[in-house]
Amino acid sequence: MRDFSADHRWLSINTATLRGAGPLDRILDACARHGIRAISPWRDQVAAIGMKKCAALVKSHGLALSGYCRGGMFPAMDAAGLRLALDDNRRAVDEAKMLDATCLVLVVGSLPGALAGKPQSNDLFAARRDVHDGIAATLEYAKSVGMPLAIEPLHPMYAADRACVNTIEQALELCDAIDPRPASTSNGALAPLGVAVDVYHIWWDPKLEAQIARAGRDRLLAFHVCDWLVPTKDLLNDRGMMGDGVIEIPRIRGWVEAAGFAGYSEVEIFSTQDWWKRPEDEVLATCIARHRTVV
Amino acid sequence: MRDFSADHRWLSINTATLRGAGPLDRILDACARHGIRAISPWRDQVAAIGMKKCAALVKSHGLALSGYCRGGMFPAMDAAGLRLALDDNRRAVDEAKMLDATCLVLVVGSLPGALAGKPQSNDLFAARRDVHDGIAATLEYAKSVGMPLAIEPLHPMYAADRACVNTIEQALELCDAIDPRPASTSNGALAPLGVAVDVYHIWWDPKLEAQIARAGRDRLLAFHVCDWLVPTKDLLNDRGMMGDGVIEIPRIRGWVEAAGFAGYSEVEIFSTQDWWKRPEDEVLATCIARHRTVV
Repeated sequence: MRDFSADHRWLSINTATLRGAGPLDRILDACARHGIRAISPWRDQVAAIGMKKCAALVKSHGLALSGYCRGGMFPAMDAAGLRLALDDNRRAVDEAKMLDATCLVLVVGSLPGALAGKPQSNDLFAARRDVHDGIAATLEYAKSVGMPLAIEPLHPMYAADRACVNTIEQALELCDAIDPRPASTSNGALAPLGVAVDVYHIWWDPKLEAQIARAGRDRLLAFHVCDWLVPTKDLLNDRGMMGDGVIEIPRIRGWVEAAGFAGYSEVEIFSTQDWWKRPEDEVLATCIARHRTVV
Repeated sequence: MRDFSADHRWLSINTATLRGAGPLDRILDACARHGIRAISPWRDQVAAIGMKKCAALVKSHGLALSGYCRGGMFPAMDAAGLRLALDDNRRAVDEAKMLDATCLVLVVGSLPGALAGKPQSNDLFAARRDVHDGIAATLEYAKSVGMPLAIEPLHPMYAADRACVNTIEQALELCDAIDPRPASTSNGALAPLGVAVDVYHIWWDPKLEAQIARAGRDRLLAFHVCDWLVPTKDLLNDRGMMGDGVIEIPRIRGWVEAAGFAGYSEVEIFSTQDWWKRPEDEVLATCIARHRTVV
């Protein structure tokens, strides 16, 4: 397991962590100021300042992208809706490619309409079928341009509105169904389809260690950290800073690295009432300190 | 699958559903008024009116108990704490026996102190060990008095503070480890140790159908219903009335009954902002109507 205590070279900042800090250019400047080497930006933040400006800043600051957030949201009520989702995912792949991201993260979606608070269906099985088909179609294009897709299993409390893929096991079943691995051992390259492991979503899973091992080096495309607060006051926006909650992050990172993962540890914190209200320099200084001590 | 449309003979009311209605005697009177044949009371509600009075009311109203809530909360920081939990579970078994409950439901607990908002440990593995040992010790006593124990896997959003058992698969692994089944086929009797299946906690699980089938008739000790609201505004107390959310309850009930379950369908709704504010007659009339149409 890598020693993170001496520096923060393996720290990446998911730019959602700094949603309180203003536009993306300001966020990227702050990251550069703190010696951050990698980020993972959200599409809406990129769109707000423009892809051209974003790409220029990424280049001038010498930033790597540990991921690009996000594709997915495949399920829909009809063919037109499914087509719209596929088109949007194709654009997401293109954007990820323009920024030379390690992978495009997929939050796969679930019951159509649920994210807007008005579910039009309660058929989780139909949603799972749409997700399978949507990933398969997107993967074909993603392979053609060389952009790995990382399925992110979300916590089961998001099963209705954000993702009907809720465990690493389930994500790996999807990977194996859509993109079977060759029988020969991996050459160490990233697979075109794999998983994003976010400790917030999967820390509770009794099968976690085994499924991380099963994923292996080629299917582990991203590793996200934050913490589970006790109590958690909001289902979406009350994530904690690493060390402030109950997740044994080093234990999980140990498993991920034992399986061969050697990429960035990406901090992704949604926190309307706490971290998004603090100055970006305080947030980043805290991310760095915690990265070195409790991740 | 049983037809529930013609009557509500298989409806049970978990008395937490009527927490807004006052003391347990008032709740039981209301249940009797609505022709409810079964209930599942909580220990604090029983204690508040006294066991003797409760037992007399249960008898005079001719009520069956589909379960008794609850034992569990096994993990602790030291031997004294573990002993306290075991003593308390022994009392819970005795109370369940006095009321002739079908089973004692176990909410197993997790990180010590977390339920009070102050976790004293983040070692989920230690918590799981305490849970294993606590169930094993309690089962020995429960068997001696003939009271089945039903492990209730809770939704993973309660993994820190309420239960470190979060899937039916995990609960069944515990059952098999603590109380292995004989190789011969079941005689149809309830096992001394099994699971309580609450749709709220497990509806998202991609392995749900297979694990319900694996549980089989003898391990399926209780079936609880309510609904998952979109959006869900509170992690604990925003459960929905059946039909108001996105859980495909009949599909899950179909699986449970295909596995041999033939007991009550127990309504358990925690809802501080909605159902607990309504008159008990409205709540019960709605439970009955929904039981007949959407369960």
